[in-house]
Amino acid sequence: MEKIAVIGGGSWATALVKILSENRSQIHWWMRNQNDVQHLINYKHNPRYLSGVSFDLNYVKPSNDIRSVVATADWVILAVPAAFVKDALAELPEGALKDKVVISAIKGMIPQENILVTDYVGHHFHVPNSHQLVIAGPCHAEEVALEKQSYLTIGSHDLAKAEHFCELLRNRYVKANPLDDLDGVEYCAVIKNIIALACGIARGLNYGDNFQAVLVSNAMFEIERFLDKVMPMHRSLTGSAYLGDLLVTAYSQFSRNRTFGNMIGRGYTVKSAQMEMNMVAEGYYAVKSIYELNKKLNVEMPITSAVYLILYEKISPAVEFEILKDKLK
Amino acid sequence: MEKIAVIGGGSWATALVKILSENRSQIHWWMRNQNDVQHLINYKHNPRYLSGVSFDLNYVKPSNDIRSVVATADWVILAVPAAFVKDALAELPEGALKDKVVISAIKGMIPQENILVTDYVGHHFHVPNSHQLVIAGPCHAEEVALEKQSYLTIGSHDLAKAEHFCELLRNRYVKANPLDDLDGVEYCAVIKNIIALACGIARGLNYGDNFQAVLVSNAMFEIERFLDKVMPMHRSLTGSAYLGDLLVTAYSQFSRNRTFGNMIGRGYTVKSAQMEMNMVAEGYYAVKSIYELNKKLNVEMPITSAVYLILYEKISPAVEFEILKDKLK
Repeated sequence: MEKIAVIGGGSWATALVKILSENRSQIHWWMRNQNDVQHLINYKHNPRYLSGVSFDLNYVKPSNDIRSVVATADWVILAVPAAFVKDALAELPEGALKDKVVISAIKGMIPQENILVTDYVGHHFHVPNSHQLVIAGPCHAEEVALEKQSYLTIGSHDLAKAEHFCELLRNRYVKANPLDDLDGVEYCAVIKNIIALACGIARGLNYGDNFQAVLVSNAMFEIERFLDKVMPMHRSLTGSAYLGDLLVTAYSQFSRNRTFGNMIGRGYTVKSAQMEMNMVAEGYYAVKSIYELNKKLNVEMPITSAVYLILYEKISPAVEFEILKDKLK
Repeated sequence: MEKIAVIGGGSWATALVKILSENRSQIHWWMRNQNDVQHLINYKHNPRYLSGVSFDLNYVKPSNDIRSVVATADWVILAVPAAFVKDALAELPEGALKDKVVISAIKGMIPQENILVTDYVGHHFHVPNSHQLVIAGPCHAEEVALEKQSYLTIGSHDLAKAEHFCELLRNRYVKANPLDDLDGVEYCAVIKNIIALACGIARGLNYGDNFQAVLVSNAMFEIERFLDKVMPMHRSLTGSAYLGDLLVTAYSQFSRNRTFGNMIGRGYTVKSAQMEMNMVAEGYYAVKSIYELNKKLNVEMPITSAVYLILYEKISPAVEFEILKDKLK
């Protein structure tokens, strides 16, 4: 039986625990909140996310002791928001991830440092690239809960490890494929949240479907230019891990990034939108990281720049999108 | 003043007449129905489509005499459904389009013959490729009527002519760009209707957003393989004229192809779906043309094949999509 640690109690973590435990891997599931752990043990449901999903406690072991959870496992899946990664892993000693395969299910970058989660894990815990994987969508956790047909891509420098992990995921409603692009898949997952935010702003400003289609087309070129600069290799960017992941976020009515952008477009300030939503959209952090990283790279990224200026420099969305629309084609 | 004939009275024709006449080109607008012509002359509105749009009759000359409409113009825009092109142009003598620039705004192929509209015009009226253009979206006519920001791409073998036509289109809410790919843009516009139909079938079968994102990603590879075989050249398929056009159709709740597919997915027969909709979705014809054309080309087109088998060979959509889903990734 494979032993897998899952770090995080959100909806994506919950969906992954469902998939992996149903395939009879042993899941050591860390969540911070002791009440949530106890609720899971008592009632076999996560009280906060995908609460319709029932877990078999023969395979799922909830705990709030991250050290023991990680120590017991051979695979460690990180599934907390990017902004909380350092905090969540703070209790782990530097050698805690030695010889384990670390899998990032996180779609964001470490704030301030503006580095990918895999880079942080590599530097801080000395986990080599060959022992890291990333899970890419397109995959709403809610649809996994409903057992709707979904496809995952596992990005990696070590295709054999990626294929092994794919085996643990595959089931009646999940297909999984390995792909030899760790960083590209991870960066694309970060940028897609910025694009979804931009789509939301456009909607809030009353732009229509014609504009959104052009925005997404132009976003693909923006992603291509960025990846070609930061990690050049041949990629088929229309693949599910890139375009597919972008589409499922940008066209979803339920995307937090899109909802947040929509409120900004309709005139909310950043603070009031965040208060109203009672959460922070990942794209809000992502755009700062990518924008600051790009100060060195100098890639032409008009959509990312527009979103940054609106969110962090208080430029009017209407004015910024008037400028942006002339740069699209 | 530029003299432009517009052939067709549907929503896309109406949107183009709005754009071009507002820019003070002289539009000679042919529609078959004499009552519609008279309504336009009396009330300055098309009674059937985008009826909120008002036309300035100093610039718009409605007529049901196709010979005189074409004879007066230097540019001839074809905007009837593909299935009716031959019928609409039947009255024109072979030399009627000599020295004119013919612009196809049609997203379909000539049925039975399985050739592009531009190829039909080329063969039958001896119009050289250099005198032909195609208009590509992403562009819902309804959003043009609402003056929402839209982008058009003009595919051509003669970029100077394409740029000239772009000049006639550009205004406050329309941007237009030339592109040196006549056939690719035209084929893509045909295939996107098949993909939208497939998205509708998937929705009707209760597949979710995750699946649709994967379906569209795989469709892009299918389009790429087809175009590489039928007309190889370097293309940026994530551009607005290709991916953008596909997105605006595949993700639209209002797409007829999607609606038709949805009914098929929910168990309607082709005939009952067509009766209920009181119209025929372009994708219904397109899939037959592409499928038959592909018998010679042998391109791997699993989505097109699945849609064909469902619509023309009465294979159960549920069964066919079970097979299709294993071919996607």
